[in-house]
Amino acid sequence: MRTWRTAHRSLRSADPRRHRAFSASVWPCGRRSTADLLQHGADEENVCVTGWVRTVRKQKRVAFAAVSDGSTVHSIQAVLKPEDAANLSTGTAVELNGDWKASSGAKQSHELHVSRLKVLGENDAQNHPVQQKYQTAEYLRTIPHLRARIPANTLLLRLRSELIAAVTDFFNRQDFVQTHTPIITSSDCEGAGEVFTVSSNTLEDASSKSESVQEAPAEHHFFRQPKFLTVSAQLHLEALAQAVTKVWTLSPTFRAERSDTPRHLSEFYMLEAEVCFVQDLNEIMDLVEAMLRSAVSTLAKSRVAQELLEPKQQPPPRDPTANNNDSSPPSSEILQQRWNGIIAPDWPRITYAEAIQLLEEAHASRKNTTAFHFPPSYADGLQAEHERYLASTIGQGKPVFVTHYPAAQKPFYMSPSTDSDTVACFDLLVPDLCELAGGSLREHRSEELQAAMRGKGVAGENLEWYHNLRRFGSVPHGGFGLGFDRLLCYLSGVGNVRDVVAFPRWFGRCEC
Amino acid sequence: MRTWRTAHRSLRSADPRRHRAFSASVWPCGRRSTADLLQHGADEENVCVTGWVRTVRKQKRVAFAAVSDGSTVHSIQAVLKPEDAANLSTGTAVELNGDWKASSGAKQSHELHVSRLKVLGENDAQNHPVQQKYQTAEYLRTIPHLRARIPANTLLLRLRSELIAAVTDFFNRQDFVQTHTPIITSSDCEGAGEVFTVSSNTLEDASSKSESVQEAPAEHHFFRQPKFLTVSAQLHLEALAQAVTKVWTLSPTFRAERSDTPRHLSEFYMLEAEVCFVQDLNEIMDLVEAMLRSAVSTLAKSRVAQELLEPKQQPPPRDPTANNNDSSPPSSEILQQRWNGIIAPDWPRITYAEAIQLLEEAHASRKNTTAFHFPPSYADGLQAEHERYLASTIGQGKPVFVTHYPAAQKPFYMSPSTDSDTVACFDLLVPDLCELAGGSLREHRSEELQAAMRGKGVAGENLEWYHNLRRFGSVPHGGFGLGFDRLLCYLSGVGNVRDVVAFPRWFGRCEC
Repeated sequence: MRTWRTAHRSLRSADPRRHRAFSASVWPCGRRSTADLLQHGADEENVCVTGWVRTVRKQKRVAFAAVSDGSTVHSIQAVLKPEDAANLSTGTAVELNGDWKASSGAKQSHELHVSRLKVLGENDAQNHPVQQKYQTAEYLRTIPHLRARIPANTLLLRLRSELIAAVTDFFNRQDFVQTHTPIITSSDCEGAGEVFTVSSNTLEDASSKSESVQEAPAEHHFFRQPKFLTVSAQLHLEALAQAVTKVWTLSPTFRAERSDTPRHLSEFYMLEAEVCFVQDLNEIMDLVEAMLRSAVSTLAKSRVAQELLEPKQQPPPRDPTANNNDSSPPSSEILQQRWNGIIAPDWPRITYAEAIQLLEEAHASRKNTTAFHFPPSYADGLQAEHERYLASTIGQGKPVFVTHYPAAQKPFYMSPSTDSDTVACFDLLVPDLCELAGGSLREHRSEELQAAMRGKGVAGENLEWYHNLRRFGSVPHGGFGLGFDRLLCYLSGVGNVRDVVAFPRWFGRCEC
Repeated sequence: MRTWRTAHRSLRSADPRRHRAFSASVWPCGRRSTADLLQHGADEENVCVTGWVRTVRKQKRVAFAAVSDGSTVHSIQAVLKPEDAANLSTGTAVELNGDWKASSGAKQSHELHVSRLKVLGENDAQNHPVQQKYQTAEYLRTIPHLRARIPANTLLLRLRSELIAAVTDFFNRQDFVQTHTPIITSSDCEGAGEVFTVSSNTLEDASSKSESVQEAPAEHHFFRQPKFLTVSAQLHLEALAQAVTKVWTLSPTFRAERSDTPRHLSEFYMLEAEVCFVQDLNEIMDLVEAMLRSAVSTLAKSRVAQELLEPKQQPPPRDPTANNNDSSPPSSEILQQRWNGIIAPDWPRITYAEAIQLLEEAHASRKNTTAFHFPPSYADGLQAEHERYLASTIGQGKPVFVTHYPAAQKPFYMSPSTDSDTVACFDLLVPDLCELAGGSLREHRSEELQAAMRGKGVAGENLEWYHNLRRFGSVPHGGFGLGFDRLLCYLSGVGNVRDVVAFPRWFGRCEC
């Protein structure tokens, strides 16, 4: 009998070098990332790099190609024989071998003198949908599978990755338990009714001719009842917080809103946390501050921050097809101020009543042309223009907490204040993007919660389990939710949330 | 005008101690987690703890309560006046103040002599659905919002959290970019057709009386066309890998399968990675090995591993309502072997052809009663019983890679081998759970991919974008997907994947 051991040995011995793979951040065959190479200040012989050509310049005796593998927004300069460069174009994938040598050019300290070039795979340069010319953001949104390759977009991918790692590290050090809350749910937490319904093709097919998803009999529903895509992990997080005290999640959430703004998507990531045994709203705001400060401080030391915050030669052109809400990208200075504002301590905290008073005073003192479009009013709530004013005037570069909104403006689950018609809640505002996060203490008492659910018209069996949490060892607690994609917009200066998400989905649009 | 500064100052000065919040893993008012306290070997005065009562023993002159906040599976022993314990029951939430003193009891080194006890919130002990008696796993699955509080389940929540942190750290150190791939998609990657359809209530309502979701005209679809919940992030990851070379995601995936097994859910987490410039399948297997070895080695040093692997007084009782697939939980020794097997280097790698040969030999040499139910056959593929045999016989405690399956058994996107009818792919098998992960090199050539798509009947405009990736700088690449919930089952010894997920969803079942 031929044993598996023989087979195993023969397979493993095929390539003795492969044991080095993934033991460090070098590639199996000693290949280097372009970021590694660019950081490496000294000459080096026999270097191997793989990547994609970003630009190519052909001269009579020599050709130059800018090549990157996406590990940095910068490219290495490859010095080539003209005949080697003949078939290169923007987008061609190459493997380069050569010597890394000091460059006489002004733009780079070193360059790669290529001794062997290998073209990997095919590139249809002429028909490449991404061209080296100005293309509108809206056009690029139609090709999300290709636009990720644009250097600025590789930077956004890396920013998201570093930010996830930084918040994961923060919560882990704070003994929070990261959870996977469900995507398919029974309940519409916000009561807004703008939910996506989930059904199963195969089952619905049988009954689809004459019946709708809603009206189909139970045996035709995959889950026996209609189910929805979650609009928030909060309710489920509250259940889990009662098991391990401090929980968080970074999870996709969904809204079937028909809004067409640069701040809304149908599918987006929310960072949410819940903490038990909290009786003071300040503790939840402290948590938000500490989390963002820690994450952004960590990021600020990374290469991705360096590349993001370095002064640009020229800002990208304004998108002429953008709607009025699309703003020009902020300068490097403004971006740096945003980062500094988050790292700075003691973010302002004002009450909703104080905010309205400030807005009324500002409205009264302004001339007609600069006055608010919507006169501020306690009953009507804050409009985007009001939030923008508060964020920029009061924040002075720092995010601003506005607390204690009228109960009438907020969902059923928030704790009422003892001395007014408000609830113990906050919104976190930043310039341009307005609301970045929101949080509150939760109503943890059984009867009071039931009354609030009836008052808001959300009482019903789909939330019975949530009310049930209040009957068995319920404790004071609170939490928050933060729009992760909006935070990326704020940190990167990207004006439209559709452009920080790799494959954005919004009303009428779901490419790939 | 009253300035915001006044308001801000007054709010911030309300509680001078609160600045300590979340600056370390102690609580705002100096409160301690039960895990902290249990690790603290020395006497300490004026300790404050919050948590839930797990058990209470009332004697004439003194009462004892076991209290935990979920930060450890263990409880602290609180020594109480009998009158204080009168209203305590399993599940009551309490705040305790007292002195942490050496205990004369044999079961604990220290105990908390309580000077002040405060009951927080309400507890309806008599009607508490979770009782201190044996309750079947199936019954507990009907109350996922409450079962998380059972000590063994708090441990599973913490295990998941630590595992997420460990893999995040591994990929971050390896310069992989963590991405958020879309949940709502246009394509059915595996071609299995068992997808959930996403629709919008509000829109469908208008047309629901006479038309099905599938047949509704475009203007009635929120996204203009029917869309689905993703079955795998792979295709989108491949697009992003071409931007930044190495990507991964830990993302929810969905299958509308009607299967009723302990290894399948309708909603589950997949850990997926894609790497460009890879031409050798061994590199992808190396990555899987390195990732799991690193994560499990990190975990092995954590408190959660200590608590999970410590010998149990007695195993939890077998679930009498479970179907035959639910196996008894493994002993601590077997669990430790599983962890050691992952940490050990050089997992066996055998080809599918070799595996079939081994199985045929085993089948032939076994008596009728122990022979396989399904005779092994190259054409028919591996059955669960075959995978179990391979994993336990060949692995000897280590996971086993089976490589190079016949192309006919695998999806369209895998690279064909040059010298046979197989594809460059692998399944990773472990005892009991069978397939834990699968991966392959991907077909990166344009024409060959198109032919494979036609061959498997998945060619169509929903995958046109995927084929498009092969036209512009396409490079050899590969990747893998790993069932994250199954991995948690394997590491924790939980026999049914429904019990490592907080809110499991499967055919006919979606609680909360």
